[in-house]
Amino acid sequence: PGKMREKEYKVGVVNGLAWTAVGGTTLEVQGVSMPGKGKLSLTGTLGNVMKESAHVAYTFVRAKGQDFGIEEADFNEKKDIHLHFPEGATPKDGPSAGITITTTIISILSGRGVRQDLAMTGEITITGEVLAVGGIKEKVIGAHRVGIREVILPAENESDVSEIPSEVSKDMKFNFVKNYEEVEKLVFEK
Amino acid sequence: PGKMREKEYKVGVVNGLAWTAVGGTTLEVQGVSMPGKGKLSLTGTLGNVMKESAHVAYTFVRAKGQDFGIEEADFNEKKDIHLHFPEGATPKDGPSAGITITTTIISILSGRGVRQDLAMTGEITITGEVLAVGGIKEKVIGAHRVGIREVILPAENESDVSEIPSEVSKDMKFNFVKNYEEVEKLVFEK
Amino acid sequence: PGKMREKEYKVGVVNGLAWTAVGGTTLEVQGVSMPGKGKLSLTGTLGNVMKESAHVAYTFVRAKGQDFGIEEADFNEKKDIHLHFPEGATPKDGPSAGITITTTIISILSGRGVRQDLAMTGEITITGEVLAVGGIKEKVIGAHRVGIREVILPAENESDVSEIPSEVSKDMKFNFVKNYEEVEKLVFEK
Amino acid sequence: PGKMREKEYKVGVVNGLAWTAVGGTTLEVQGVSMPGKGKLSLTGTLGNVMKESAHVAYTFVRAKGQDFGIEEADFNEKKDIHLHFPEGATPKDGPSAGITITTTIISILSGRGVRQDLAMTGEITITGEVLAVGGIKEKVIGAHRVGIREVILPAENESDVSEIPSEVSKDMKFNFVKNYEEVEKLVFEK
Amino acid sequence: PGKMREKEYKVGVVNGLAWTAVGGTTLEVQGVSMPGKGKLSLTGTLGNVMKESAHVAYTFVRAKGQDFGIEEADFNEKKDIHLHFPEGATPKDGPSAGITITTTIISILSGRGVRQDLAMTGEITITGEVLAVGGIKEKVIGAHRVGIREVILPAENESDVSEIPSEVSKDMKFNFVKNYEEVEKLVFEK
Amino acid sequence: PGKMREKEYKVGVVNGLAWTAVGGTTLEVQGVSMPGKGKLSLTGTLGNVMKESAHVAYTFVRAKGQDFGIEEADFNEKKDIHLHFPEGATPKDGPSAGITITTTIISILSGRGVRQDLAMTGEITITGEVLAVGGIKEKVIGAHRVGIREVILPAENESDVSEIPSEVSKDMKFNFVKNYEEVEKLVFEK
Ligand SMILES: [Ca+2]
Ligand SMILES: [Ca+2]
Ligand SMILES: [Ca+2]
Ligand SMILES: [Ca+2]
Ligand SMILES: [Ca+2]
Ligand SMILES: [Ca+2]
Ligand SMILES: [Ca+2]
Ligand SMILES: [Ca+2]
Ligand SMILES: [Ca+2]
Ligand SMILES: [Ca+2]
Ligand SMILES: [Ca+2]
Ligand SMILES: [Ca+2]
Repeated sequence: PGKMREKEYKVGVVNGLAWTAVGGTTLEVQGVSMPGKGKLSLTGTLGNVMKESAHVAYTFVRAKGQDFGIEEADFNEKKDIHLHFPEGATPKDGPSAGITITTTIISILSGRGVRQDLAMTGEITITGEVLAVGGIKEKVIGAHRVGIREVILPAENESDVSEIPSEVSKDMKFNFVKNYEEVEKLVFEK
Repeated sequence: PGKMREKEYKVGVVNGLAWTAVGGTTLEVQGVSMPGKGKLSLTGTLGNVMKESAHVAYTFVRAKGQDFGIEEADFNEKKDIHLHFPEGATPKDGPSAGITITTTIISILSGRGVRQDLAMTGEITITGEVLAVGGIKEKVIGAHRVGIREVILPAENESDVSEIPSEVSKDMKFNFVKNYEEVEKLVFEK
Repeated sequence: PGKMREKEYKVGVVNGLAWTAVGGTTLEVQGVSMPGKGKLSLTGTLGNVMKESAHVAYTFVRAKGQDFGIEEADFNEKKDIHLHFPEGATPKDGPSAGITITTTIISILSGRGVRQDLAMTGEITITGEVLAVGGIKEKVIGAHRVGIREVILPAENESDVSEIPSEVSKDMKFNFVKNYEEVEKLVFEK
Repeated sequence: PGKMREKEYKVGVVNGLAWTAVGGTTLEVQGVSMPGKGKLSLTGTLGNVMKESAHVAYTFVRAKGQDFGIEEADFNEKKDIHLHFPEGATPKDGPSAGITITTTIISILSGRGVRQDLAMTGEITITGEVLAVGGIKEKVIGAHRVGIREVILPAENESDVSEIPSEVSKDMKFNFVKNYEEVEKLVFEK
Repeated sequence: PGKMREKEYKVGVVNGLAWTAVGGTTLEVQGVSMPGKGKLSLTGTLGNVMKESAHVAYTFVRAKGQDFGIEEADFNEKKDIHLHFPEGATPKDGPSAGITITTTIISILSGRGVRQDLAMTGEITITGEVLAVGGIKEKVIGAHRVGIREVILPAENESDVSEIPSEVSKDMKFNFVKNYEEVEKLVFEK
Repeated sequence: PGKMREKEYKVGVVNGLAWTAVGGTTLEVQGVSMPGKGKLSLTGTLGNVMKESAHVAYTFVRAKGQDFGIEEADFNEKKDIHLHFPEGATPKDGPSAGITITTTIISILSGRGVRQDLAMTGEITITGEVLAVGGIKEKVIGAHRVGIREVILPAENESDVSEIPSEVSKDMKFNFVKNYEEVEKLVFEK
């Protein structure tokens, strides 16, 4: 298992969980906001479902941003946002980075740091619900391998945790969430 | 059968009925409106017929909105609307969410709550007619399974109700409609 | 045969004639005009020839609109127009709805009602000529079946009428036209 | 052979020559200009070479329009132009309508009438050269059949005229041109 | 061999060299500049590499135009440019028209005439380097056949000249260039 | 081995390293910035991953430009940038030109010269991290062959250097970098 990560905070860098042909792994989302005109750029060889997921996250933050410490209510007219998913050549798709993307957007617009020792997965809807995703077992094993000891998972996936080998799950803290408000309480620097 | 749903109201969340390879089910439509410039965004892996159906619903509401409690007559210049169809990775298509989409748009623009214990299906035209759709039997069985006890169906589909097994139909209240005005009377909070 | 239709008038709803794999039928065109910026929207799963045909009709009305009771000479800058062809999931193509589309656009921009007991078919050009189309026999039989007793056909198709069975043609009034001016005299409420 | 056409003039209607699988024929180009913002619309199921050919003709007229009686030097900012090639469902392609399109654009912008008893074919370049085209024999026979007795052909095609049967060519007046200036002298109403 | 061309000058017409399935030939580039907003139009059935090559040439001229007699430093905001490659129906691609296109753009923006008895080939970069191209032997033979007696070639292609038959090369003047500055000295009217 | 390159500096020309079917080679990136409106143009037959990589580099420079000597903080509204990758007909793709592109953008916007005797490879992220790339052995051998004696490589690729034949590596200076700040210290003229 990877070296356990320290509890540090970064703005605009959030750990997701991905499920690939060769097993689970973490998937970093990086974000930058700049003075601009409301353009949302997405790079990293993303498929259409993932692009739509980012659009959903962006709308959710537009509608609810002030609840999360974003002062500029009309950021969508004054800021350009660029979200990048390294490594650039690896195709990525699916809705499961929804809460990771949401967290990245809130972080760069509010300036609040995000915990780097924690990873998350879950589909987001425009009303802020968190929906079930696939590959929970592989994702958690992959996160454990790179030193992650705490994860956020959709409440709808709670039953999938029983499939994780106990030598991994015994090290892990699991947080199950139904909506984004619960994610927010867990990830940001106070 | 699922637990019977209570008669509660939500703004911007409406239950449609979908017909998939594995049977009927409910298909939630979620909407958010935001200060903007009249952009209509659609996410949830929608096919072209479904996108056109949303465009038709949007035009119908632009033309008739004041009849339904929308005060801002020129919302199409001042509001951005985003409609999302969870789950994001599941492809969806067809015209049968027409009245569901129409209801979502009216709800978010008027602020009126929509009954959550009721589901609906029907194609909409730009003049507000409600046209027949397919899969009535499967859709109603699917709705019953998740606790729905009242549905809105196109009047043109009235004869299809005889194919629904009586152990389902005896629990159900059916509303048959010819145009959207009849839908409106059934779904909104007074 | 369908119940004979009454001579009533509607704004923005016009009966065309279509020719499908399963025989002829009527094809309704529905139009709405709204304050806007000159956008022409087309929905109903239209092929490229039909979209171009709508564009041709729109240009013809822009160039000649005042002859047909459209007062707002610059409607193309002040009105959005949406034309919809129910049923939304059925693909439609070809130039033969040209005069039907032209009539719909004139109706919604002038506010003049259109006869609902009459159906029409014919390609339109930007100078207002009406050109021959295919499927006359099937289209007229289909119209008769749904209660239509009067049709407008291109003069170039006059010879095709002899192929229609006499039990249909004896009920029908045929109007043959060479240009749109002749259509206009037949369809609008005085 | 068709009835010989009379020497009449129309604005915005010009006879080209086309070469199809079933022989030569005339190909009418229709144009309308309207107050607008410089949009060039093209309809009639045109291929890319034909669309580019229309763009070339448009540029040639922008650059040289005042030589041809177009007073509004900046028409490209104040006029929308729509060129339509009936019949709408028939695919059309190739550069050989170049001088026909050029003539149509000049006619609608200058208001000058064009001879209807004459047909033409030839590729145009942005400097106004007229280049050779294919199918001269078939095109001239087709024109003769519909009553045309005078044609304009590229000088580069002069040798192709010997292939035309003498019973056609004896009725025909041939004009061979090297550049558009020579076309202009032949087609417009004085 | 074609009749030897005279040393005359034209604005906006430049001879390139092309290499086709049936041997080498000259490829004329024609350009027109008009009052406009900075649009660069390209016609003549060009492939993507050739379109990019034209974009590279345009940027090079924007960056260095004043060195070449273009007074209007911001032409990219005030002029529309249209480059056409007759014959319109013949597909063309590749980077080898780079210096020909560059010369055409400079000619139409500066009003300087270009030698018509000379032809050229060479890829251009945005810094003005001239890079090697293919088909030198075929291109020079083709140019000779149509009466060209002087060519401009990339210095990187100097060794390819030994492959040209001596009965052609003995008639020819070869100019080898490393950058566009050397082209400019050879082609424009003083 | 190629003649060893001298330590000279150029603005807007940077040597990358590419890995092709026929071995490693240098890949020059050329950039020009011009008064404009913030357009980023990319030419040279680039694949989507490479285009996204350029977009990532551009965002990184927008966010951090003032650290690198770019005074015009809002260059993204006032400058057009064109990056070209000769040779134009050769397809190029992948994320490995990330730091090369970043260096080119900084050079043209700050006016600082870049070392021409040095080549580099490495993926860039929007936060400025430098990530591992493939083909290190082939790329370094290719650079050596054309006279390069110093390279910049991602720290993540340090172990790949052991695969390079010692007759090449003994001539080479290797710089391993984790983020762009380290690249900047090595490449620009002081
Ligand atoms: Ca990282
Ligand atoms: Ca699911
Ligand atoms: Ca829900
Ligand atoms: Ca149906
Ligand atoms: Ca109807
Ligand atoms: Ca026909
Ligand atoms: Ca005609
Ligand atoms: Ca030819
Ligand atoms: Ca010429
Ligand atoms: Ca090469
Ligand atoms: Ca170089
Ligand atoms: Ca990798």
